[in-house]
Amino acid sequence: MNTREPDGLLYENLANHIAGLIDRGGFRSGDRLPSLRKTCVQHGDSTATAMQAYVTLENRGLIEARPKSGFFVRSRWSDTAPEPCLTAPCCKVRTIKSRSLIGQVFEAAGRSDIIPLGAACPSAEVLPAEKLSRMLRAVDRQNARRAIMYDPPPGCEPLRRQIAKRSMEGGENLQPDEIITTVGCMEALNLSLRAVAAPGDIIAIESPTYFGVIESIRELGMRVVEIPMHPRDGMDLEALELALGRHKIAACFCTPSFNNPLGSCMPDKNRQRLVAMLAKRQIPLIEDDIYGDLHHGIVRPRTAKSYDREGLVMLCSSFTKTLAPGFRVGWVAPGRFFDRVLNLKFTNTVATATLPQLAIAEFLQNGGYDRYLRGVRVFYGEQIQRFSEAIAHSFPTKTTISRPTGGFVLWVGLPKGCDALALHEAALARNISITPGPLFSATPAYRNFIRITCAHPWSREIERAIVVLGELAKQQLG
Amino acid sequence: MNTREPDGLLYENLANHIAGLIDRGGFRSGDRLPSLRKTCVQHGDSTATAMQAYVTLENRGLIEARPKSGFFVRSRWSDTAPEPCLTAPCCKVRTIKSRSLIGQVFEAAGRSDIIPLGAACPSAEVLPAEKLSRMLRAVDRQNARRAIMYDPPPGCEPLRRQIAKRSMEGGENLQPDEIITTVGCMEALNLSLRAVAAPGDIIAIESPTYFGVIESIRELGMRVVEIPMHPRDGMDLEALELALGRHKIAACFCTPSFNNPLGSCMPDKNRQRLVAMLAKRQIPLIEDDIYGDLHHGIVRPRTAKSYDREGLVMLCSSFTKTLAPGFRVGWVAPGRFFDRVLNLKFTNTVATATLPQLAIAEFLQNGGYDRYLRGVRVFYGEQIQRFSEAIAHSFPTKTTISRPTGGFVLWVGLPKGCDALALHEAALARNISITPGPLFSATPAYRNFIRITCAHPWSREIERAIVVLGELAKQQLG
Repeated sequence: MNTREPDGLLYENLANHIAGLIDRGGFRSGDRLPSLRKTCVQHGDSTATAMQAYVTLENRGLIEARPKSGFFVRSRWSDTAPEPCLTAPCCKVRTIKSRSLIGQVFEAAGRSDIIPLGAACPSAEVLPAEKLSRMLRAVDRQNARRAIMYDPPPGCEPLRRQIAKRSMEGGENLQPDEIITTVGCMEALNLSLRAVAAPGDIIAIESPTYFGVIESIRELGMRVVEIPMHPRDGMDLEALELALGRHKIAACFCTPSFNNPLGSCMPDKNRQRLVAMLAKRQIPLIEDDIYGDLHHGIVRPRTAKSYDREGLVMLCSSFTKTLAPGFRVGWVAPGRFFDRVLNLKFTNTVATATLPQLAIAEFLQNGGYDRYLRGVRVFYGEQIQRFSEAIAHSFPTKTTISRPTGGFVLWVGLPKGCDALALHEAALARNISITPGPLFSATPAYRNFIRITCAHPWSREIERAIVVLGELAKQQLG
Repeated sequence: MNTREPDGLLYENLANHIAGLIDRGGFRSGDRLPSLRKTCVQHGDSTATAMQAYVTLENRGLIEARPKSGFFVRSRWSDTAPEPCLTAPCCKVRTIKSRSLIGQVFEAAGRSDIIPLGAACPSAEVLPAEKLSRMLRAVDRQNARRAIMYDPPPGCEPLRRQIAKRSMEGGENLQPDEIITTVGCMEALNLSLRAVAAPGDIIAIESPTYFGVIESIRELGMRVVEIPMHPRDGMDLEALELALGRHKIAACFCTPSFNNPLGSCMPDKNRQRLVAMLAKRQIPLIEDDIYGDLHHGIVRPRTAKSYDREGLVMLCSSFTKTLAPGFRVGWVAPGRFFDRVLNLKFTNTVATATLPQLAIAEFLQNGGYDRYLRGVRVFYGEQIQRFSEAIAHSFPTKTTISRPTGGFVLWVGLPKGCDALALHEAALARNISITPGPLFSATPAYRNFIRITCAHPWSREIERAIVVLGELAKQQLG
């Protein structure tokens, strides 16, 4: 499955060397790094190694590529608040209690009178609505009858072909017949969970993690054990190892590329180790790669799936964050659990809507998806930067802010004494939606954390909203 | 919820009187019945009562309305085989075993080299593809951005408004905020089951019933108890009463209007009694009304939901059989379980695709849905007639055929000694798909039954396929 082997750790050494220079002021914000060729000559490495080192630094958020100008040291975090530290959730197994707040957060996303910093939904202004609309018309013109008929599981063949083709980027090299299309990533995750775990079973999850998955696990009658997260490197594998020794874990759910809400990106060697650790115990890994295409650096992170030799990794994703949330088109590559997931897909929704699948297949083939992604990545990188600076400026001292290297959300830690749920209420009363931290755990954690979505183009209204949020937080501190 | 009270049993008496006349040859095939006015005068009833009586006779398949000419005694069943008798499934509680055959049946539906008498999927030639395509373009032109964005649960407001408006026809008089849109009827059924029952729980189902629901219940880890069916009147309520006394039943799943595969239509007074029986024990009724709009007679059967006083009936339906299977748009009116279903909808698929919902809303409002339905009902009535006659002509003697008064499938009982699974195999080898009877039960029943879908316009190929099926069945008998 995997063709792109890492070339030892040469590039990591080189990356660490450069990172050290940046750290000690050898390179400063805005400085141009030596060209790839020059770096090769200086360090005696191959161009590939130098490239990989630069990409690693990009993924760490230290440098950025500017088209046709080379690599520059990012200024991004200089004006912002410190990072949050390693999370420390309660590691007991949890039966999850019902959380009615989720509906409220989601509902706010649909209101036009709200400054939408809550739901992690891309902005209509950024999505390629016009082009998708052209694709829809093209598909419909070609064959209106096909569009209204079923496309039974595994789903739309042209779309699966395009997904397979693109899977080289993540290093998986999937075949179309390894893929099942789904109603967004949520159905993919749901079917994966149901395929490998039963009610009462324990799922190891990241803490914090996307509240929808916690709720989904709860509704399936399963339990969770939460694993601490490093704010940049993602899941703490030592802690996972401990949990695996202590509990009978049925599956592990993980978002190696840009955990929602942390934005962490698991280093390649950790991904490799994670897959090996689970394979040793024959535990399936449900990998959520929904933000994988939205890395701010140049090269897409490899998926954990790309290290999978045993078909134990179930890779889930969708086009919800990149192209069209309302199309509800996702997919899963469930490895050895293909037949189980296929049958579950049939009993859950029979099939995925045909027309949106055909339109996305057309977009991937002829719509300039890569060009579009390049633009949107730069946009989200800049948004993250701008929001971080504004938050650091307006929020109480001792606020911490995550350093995402992909996606479009920030995880903001408020000083002890702040209450995210009360802040959420107060903000809603001022027509601002945010997502309170406690949603991202089944434990009573993250009471002073909030998630801020930076998907909507920066504006005076958003600027004012951030100021208001800062004031509300300060009021809480008295 | 209910405004249309039945006017006692007057109309039933009148209907039975006329049915008796037809039965004893007082009226013969093709005879015109007295006008409504004349009938009123003769029997001293109101026009409404006479109308209701005629409609009842229509729903029983005894008479048919011809536009501007009045009511005529149907010839439909004179040239066909006898009806199947009351079903007699094993009434033990069943844990369902995996049934891999379903995928095969469904897959055949997608193949263009197959005569499609298997999956109960409407034909692309009959569906209003062109008009839906116009609706899609209209919606997209009006607001391409809206179409690509989420329409979070309960789902597309314009669509819920149209569904609510139409719900007067079934007697429910729903409000838009009682409805949640879903990914086809299958998601509606799934969420309903999950809302009211847990793994291990027992669901009372019709026997035979739609195999997708049996499979869905199995995948949810629930068990079933199968209730016998009267071939015309549907679920045997005496048998249900017995089962309710014997087992702790968590929910009842029922298709009062045109059970798939039987095509039975439960009389109004049975629906009323069913709802009351379950309400007495506070057991939810999951009502599948997916074929409700496809009655061959003039008036739509009332739903069981229309008799619901306690919010215990969860009405599920979709536009899969009427407008566009590939749009995957269904809905549920879950009564008192609204909040549970809403949360499950969110965790299952987040939302239903926006654009197909908007297009169907537009079709319901401005597309002449009722005119289209009138045409398609006549078409399906005629198809059922033609297929029945052909089957009666080509199949072995002692074959029985159901008398559906709605929908587009026939339930065909072959003589003892025939094996439906072997017939299915042999037919597939001749490029003909049918659905073998055993799929429609969790018990080892219906081994000599098959379901024939009559949705595809009658043709020489279909005529030949029926002849081939008859020959294959005769070969089995030696």
